[in-house]
Amino acid sequence: VKLQVALDFVAGETALKVAAAVARYVDIIEAGTPLIKAEGVHIISELRRAHGDKEILADLKTMDTGYLEAELAFLAGADIVTVCGAADDATVSGAVTAAREYRKLAMVDLIGVRETVCRAREILALDADLVGIHAGIDEQNKGVSILATLEKFDHIPRERISVAGGINLNSIDSIAGFRPAVIVVGGAITKADRPERIAAELRARMSM
Amino acid sequence: VKLQVALDFVAGETALKVAAAVARYVDIIEAGTPLIKAEGVHIISELRRAHGDKEILADLKTMDTGYLEAELAFLAGADIVTVCGAADDATVSGAVTAAREYRKLAMVDLIGVRETVCRAREILALDADLVGIHAGIDEQNKGVSILATLEKFDHIPRERISVAGGINLNSIDSIAGFRPAVIVVGGAITKADRPERIAAELRARMSM
Repeated sequence: VKLQVALDFVAGETALKVAAAVARYVDIIEAGTPLIKAEGVHIISELRRAHGDKEILADLKTMDTGYLEAELAFLAGADIVTVCGAADDATVSGAVTAAREYRKLAMVDLIGVRETVCRAREILALDADLVGIHAGIDEQNKGVSILATLEKFDHIPRERISVAGGINLNSIDSIAGFRPAVIVVGGAITKADRPERIAAELRARMSM
Repeated sequence: VKLQVALDFVAGETALKVAAAVARYVDIIEAGTPLIKAEGVHIISELRRAHGDKEILADLKTMDTGYLEAELAFLAGADIVTVCGAADDATVSGAVTAAREYRKLAMVDLIGVRETVCRAREILALDADLVGIHAGIDEQNKGVSILATLEKFDHIPRERISVAGGINLNSIDSIAGFRPAVIVVGGAITKADRPERIAAELRARMSM
């Protein structure tokens, strides 16, 4: 199980600082959607340069022009891009095509999708590498829990599942017990006084 | 009926050049989603500076953190932001709240939404200013026509409808005949050898 830190900042400088503090404890460093929109893809290149031994994920949350946006991020140095499952199949396929061409990965984020399990199957049939089960920040504020959602995904191969949405030290054990390919943690790390301590503890708990 | 040019470039310099060429014929200048992701919100500020007399639309296509992303664009100088109708209601409401606070506008893009008319009603009930009927570029490549979609929106107030998706000199008359608040044109202008000529002709045809 890989640990991914979501850099959910809008200031590039802060994102780079936190990335440097937590990098040794994580496998994947994510440039969050607002960060990319605020800074542009150069922030992906900076993360790439600073962390040559880590995977860099560009959380594009693409809704159209799947190939174009994925290519933009791959050229900037991303290893993984995200595209929305709520987008048209052609958009998902466009991102997957770019991933195959650049020998990188495409993750399909189910945020906003209603029939999540059904759509996850369609997405894997479109040859996406990972499907992201995701309670968005706005949804979390309404009390939507990621664990309840996870249980429905019992028949989707675990090695193709990424899980995100309010995961913290309270929920990491049960999420890790599900054995997804990737666990994404944002605020629990990035809003902490000492992000490196939380990242280290999450990593330790995942290794048990 | 306002004319909006969608700057669907990834290079900021090209976008600024085309904006300068066509500005006199359009009401709204749109920084496209890939442009914002490529360049960051500074491109919105540059368009704002160069075109003080035009409305600047930031096509964020937000799927989460509606307030945060909308605020980011308003602070950069946008007059209108977009949020996806496929997103959670809380995300749409977040963008609308930011719009009310900054005395700007929120447009909800129906790209990726299946039950478009039903969702359009929900969105207007959430106090969004405009609802965007949109055949995405990836959808257009599959032959989806925006006119067929428009006919279903007969009972939605025209002054709150924005229409986008492959509109060109062949389709402008029928789209303009529908009398939406905004007509968005991308490729027909931006891929033309002389973008200003196409923009001028579209404007002339809309005034008939």
